[in-house]
Formats: sequence, structure tokens, C-alpha cells
Amino acid sequence: MSSTAGKVIRCRAAVAWEAGKPLVMEEVEVAPPQTMEVRIKIAFTSLCHTDVYFWEAKGQTPVFPRIFGHEAGGIVESVGEGVTDLAPGDHVLPVFTGECKECAHCKSEESNMCNLLRINTDRGVMLYDGKSRFSINGKPIYHFVGTSTFSEYTVVHVGCIAKINPLAPLDKVCVLSCGITTGLGATLNVAKPPKGSTVSVFGLGAVGLAAAEGARISGASRIIGVDLINSRFEEAKKFGVTEFVNPKEHSKPVQEVLAEMTDGGVDRSIECTGNVDAMISAFECVHDGWGVAVIVGVPHKDAVFKTHPINLLNERTLKGTFFGNYKPRSDLPSVVEMYMNKELELEKFITHTVPFSEINKAFEYMLSAEGIRCIIRMDE
Amino acid sequence: MSSTAGKVIRCRAAVAWEAGKPLVMEEVEVAPPQTMEVRIKIAFTSLCHTDVYFWEAKGQTPVFPRIFGHEAGGIVESVGEGVTDLAPGDHVLPVFTGECKECAHCKSEESNMCNLLRINTDRGVMLYDGKSRFSINGKPIYHFVGTSTFSEYTVVHVGCIAKINPLAPLDKVCVLSCGITTGLGATLNVAKPPKGSTVSVFGLGAVGLAAAEGARISGASRIIGVDLINSRFEEAKKFGVTEFVNPKEHSKPVQEVLAEMTDGGVDRSIECTGNVDAMISAFECVHDGWGVAVIVGVPHKDAVFKTHPINLLNERTLKGTFFGNYKPRSDLPSVVEMYMNKELELEKFITHTVPFSEINKAFEYMLSAEGIRCIIRMDE
Repeated sequence: MSSTAGKVIRCRAAVAWEAGKPLVMEEVEVAPPQTMEVRIKIAFTSLCHTDVYFWEAKGQTPVFPRIFGHEAGGIVESVGEGVTDLAPGDHVLPVFTGECKECAHCKSEESNMCNLLRINTDRGVMLYDGKSRFSINGKPIYHFVGTSTFSEYTVVHVGCIAKINPLAPLDKVCVLSCGITTGLGATLNVAKPPKGSTVSVFGLGAVGLAAAEGARISGASRIIGVDLINSRFEEAKKFGVTEFVNPKEHSKPVQEVLAEMTDGGVDRSIECTGNVDAMISAFECVHDGWGVAVIVGVPHKDAVFKTHPINLLNERTLKGTFFGNYKPRSDLPSVVEMYMNKELELEKFITHTVPFSEINKAFEYMLSAEGIRCIIRMDE
Repeated sequence: MSSTAGKVIRCRAAVAWEAGKPLVMEEVEVAPPQTMEVRIKIAFTSLCHTDVYFWEAKGQTPVFPRIFGHEAGGIVESVGEGVTDLAPGDHVLPVFTGECKECAHCKSEESNMCNLLRINTDRGVMLYDGKSRFSINGKPIYHFVGTSTFSEYTVVHVGCIAKINPLAPLDKVCVLSCGITTGLGATLNVAKPPKGSTVSVFGLGAVGLAAAEGARISGASRIIGVDLINSRFEEAKKFGVTEFVNPKEHSKPVQEVLAEMTDGGVDRSIECTGNVDAMISAFECVHDGWGVAVIVGVPHKDAVFKTHPINLLNERTLKGTFFGNYKPRSDLPSVVEMYMNKELELEKFITHTVPFSEINKAFEYMLSAEGIRCIIRMDE
């Protein structure tokens, strides 16, 4: 039992007081974990585009003041009532979506979209009592997707925590909480490219590069990166990308360009942009007879996916995925093991690190599309 | 060697002289099979909606005079040069699409869309020499989808012929050449419903009933038939259909009706109408997390499939199929065995029989939507 168990912890947190404004380092009070909750000391966190998206709060319900952050690695400080499979000292990754292990989704081998703990970007409080565990002078500071890792301590539902190998370096595997795992799983769990196949990846951001990494691990012989930014192509080679297509440099639709490059279409296609036109291209560029397209990017709420049904009847498959179809508690430890076994390379995703005190720099890198992942060191 | 081998055979055929007009029984000359061709004595044939569709020739290039027919069972009379895996006396099913065994599709485990012998509804001649094997007084009569089974003898490419168990009754298994196999395979090979699952089938014609039969064989616990014609519901029970929904009787979209009936959506959905709105409903009615929708029906050429991408991202799968993903030569014999083993029931699909001389009656049954399959006895 740690000396802080059952007590309020005062610690540093980077608070977003309002949309789009720099985070402010504050001393916050973190309440003890309640039933089925766990308090975690965050060691490393990283910034994902989704943090920035909800921090900008364009077009969503703004929930402020809020503590963002959902990619992180940490150590359990204390556990609330009913928590039996985690204990103080365990190394963990908090995850923005959960696994209650009891609902129809958790019981299905095919789904990871837990009814109880599925991502909820509007909710700023804990499920147990509808309250926040963060406060400043008694005023609540809201949670973000149940993780709020831009705080030295945070409280997370036990169903949103993966217990991992304690030998895994948290400054590396912290990036597995969200985007990297999403892209990797889209390829390994959903697209499942056979060895020697041709895979196209739309969007060479962190998720797309992780999808390419999955194709590399699968033994794809050609990995075609599609992106509007030529400068991303050089970096993408490290992730196994063998060819590049910039749709802006072609007069015909990119699906036709890809079909010509591949004698009729790619074997697998993974869409990681969220742009609906890219989704349509990613689908229509797969080969008839066996092609599979996987949609990963989150689209605009008014977007409409359109295609001629004959594209389906010619034996193409269109699938979507959420968090790479990984169940957070059951499956994430094995992704960490892939890194430990040197199958999965994480170092190349980490292009920047900053001390926690300079967290706003991480936002600047993201906003200027510089680098892939910026690790934030919580003890500095 | 049969006494007719290498010679022209004169026999009866039902010739479509022009679009939409009753077939006329004629004496035709059937030339011997050329390289990679086989001449078959048809024993039984049945009428499929596709025959009627191209006989009506609304909106397609009309190819007349023509001999229709593509669901049949027969016996090999003679074989042309290069044919090594079939011999006179073999019991066979001719198929409207083929399997060359050499192209990328035939070599893929996932595809049955042979590059060489994929269905071609416009071509009225044989591939080898671009000529018809049928004539009347020297004037060519065109083939239909490479089968033309409304003739006592026909010539078919060896790649479009499945050699089957000689003990199988041809008056039953002849229906496996097209529609029944298409629906059955859509379920067994593509939707793959787990035992105990809930399956919806859109369209309760022959293909839809075969899809339901596939769900019954798979051990689905609920099979929900969706059709605009209430009178089809009673018959559908024989095929395992447990519940019925007529979209016309509901004010809300049928996908919402199905979601309410099934606590969020069906596990598998199979669309057998060709109507694009039904395709959209069939997709949107599957459960998030694991639902799979399979499109079977052939749509109008201007149809557009539209859905919000979030329906995909919530882990739904959309697939199309052609001939139930069966490879005609490799896989059809095993479907015949399913019938021989009493797993698959074919008798209930056969609602009418007529002698060949009365083939136009079969068209009348189809046009009035009476019954499911009408068998045409060639020796009468």
C-alpha cells in the first residue's frame, strides 16, 4: 500500500482552460479512486491528434476546463473497491476506450466496442458517480476520454487499463495507447495482408505509418503510400513504404493510378485520413476478387460514402475498424510484447521529446505537422 | 467414343428470335466441340430470372436469335482437343462463369472471378474462334453466357463445366448451376453466420431462399426474411425463415425495425434483390462490432450505394459476392455432395416441371412470380 492511498494527491497537471488556448500548468487535487477505478502515476505521455482536435473544439460541444491526454504509460498508485486484477506498482497503459469483459461486445471475439466503456468524447466525469476526480480549490476540472494523462496522477476506470510487461520501457510503449496501435491493428487484425501482397496506405501520419509498419511486419512486398505532402515520403520509407503517390500530381483519380501500378488493384488498402473522398479511393483501388479496404480515419459528421454497388459485387470487401480491433485489456499486452520481441519498431515513431513543463511545444509540433510523436516526460 | 462424336448433331432447341417473344422450338445444327470445348446432352434445365432479363433485353444490347438457358444438368457427348479432365458419359453441370485454373483469380484462394471465363452476357459466340456452334440452315444462332442449355445438345468451354457425382439426380441438382448456389454460397462462404446467430435475408426469391437455406444449415437461430410480397412468407418457412418483415408495413426505415427486433442489429445480412435501397438497409441493419452484410443482387447500372462512414468505423463489414464465391469446377461438386448427404434440401426449390415442348410455360410462371424453380424435362 502506498502512503498516498486513500488520500487526495496534489500534483501538477496541464489544464486546458478554454478552447485553443495554451495549456496552463496548475497544481490540481486528484481524489482517490472509487469503485472499479485506479489511480495511476503517469511516467510518460504523448500527444495525439485527437487531443488537439478536442482542444480546438471546433464543431463539438466544448467541455472546459479539461485535462487532455490519452496516450501514456504509468504505474498504478492505488486501486478502488472491486479492483482485483491490478495492484499498486503494476505497469500500465491507460486507454481511451475500455473492456468491461461482460457486455455482448466484450464477449464477442470479433468486437472491441464495449457497451459500457466505449469512447465517449463528451463525458468529462467518471462513470461511477458522474463526478470528476480532478479539482482546483474545489472547482472540478473535467476528464477527457476517461484518461486525462496530462497530469502527474490520473484516475481511470479499471476497464480502460492494460497491464503490461514491467520490463517494457514506458517512454517507448506509451505510444501504444492509441494511434500507433490503431494503425497497426487495422493492418494486422483487419486487412490481414498475405505475405507478398501489395498494400496501399492513405495518409502517412502516425496512424498511416503504423498501418504501413503492420504491412511490413506482414511481409507485404509492395507498400504504396498515398499522401498530399511529398515531404512525408522520405520518412515513410523507414516504415516499409516502397512507393509513393501524391494524388495532386495526377490528373486521373488516384484509384485509377493505383490500379495501373498494380495490374488491376492493390490487395489491401488502409485509409487513415478521415477524408471521405480518400475513403472512396481507398475502397475503389482494391483488386476485384479479393481486395479488402479498411477505413480507419474518423470522417466529418456529414460525410457520405458513395460507390457503385458493382464495386462490391466484384468481390471487394469494405470494413471499418476502431482501435485496430484490439481489445484494450486483453490484447494490448501482446502488442507490447511485439515491441519487446523486436518485431514492432517503436523508436522511429518518436521524433520529439519535451519535459512536461514545456507541453505546449508538443502542440506546436503537431499543429505544424512536424514529426510523428512527441513524448512528454512527466518528471521534468 | 459416341457415334455422334466429331459430327454435327441435329436436335431440338428453343430459339429466342426476338426480345420478349415466346421461344420457338426449332431443329438446330450443333457443331462438334472445338479446342477446350465439350458437347453436352442436356437432360434437365431450369429457368432463372437472368434468362428472362436478357430475353426481355430492356436496356442491354439485344443479341438475337439466341438460345438461352444456363441452369442445367447433362451428360458429356464428346470433347474437343485439349480436354483431358472430362470424357463422354461424365455427368456435368454447365455454369455461366468459368474457371481456367491459370489466371490470377483462379490461383487466388479468395476469388472465383476468372479473367478468361468470367460471365459475359454480351458475347454470343465461343471464345476459341469467335463463332457460334449453333445454326439453322447455315445461319448462326447465338449462345448465351457460354451455356445455352435450352437445346438438347450444347457446346460449352471445358472451364465452365463442373463434373459431378454420377449418382446425383440431374433433375434436382440442375438447379445448382446458378441461383441456388449463388444464395447458398453468399451465406456459407461469405457471410459465414456463427451457430446461433441472427441472419436477415432481403428478397425471398430463389436466391434469397437459398441464402436462408444456407443460414439454416449454418445453425442460425433466427432468420428474418424481408420482402415486399407477404405471400412469400409462408413458403419461406420451409427454408428456415423464422420471422418476416414487410418494409411497406412500417413507417420507419426497415434497418431500424430490424435493429429494434434484434437488440441493435442482426449478426449477418444478405441482400438478394438488386435494389440499391435494400442494399443500404441490409448494410445498416447489421450490428456494430461484428455485423457482416453481403450484397448478392445485381444493381441498376446507375445505382449508387450511400452510407455514412461511421457505419463502417463501428466495425461493420460490407462484402459483395459473385456466384456465392464458389469456383465452378473446383467447388460445385462439393455442393452436389451436400445435397447427396441430405444437408442441403433442393426439392423444396422445385415448384414446377414442364416438358421441353412447353418451355414457354416456365417463362409464364417466372413472369407471374409463381413458384421458385421450374424444371424443364428435355426428353419430352
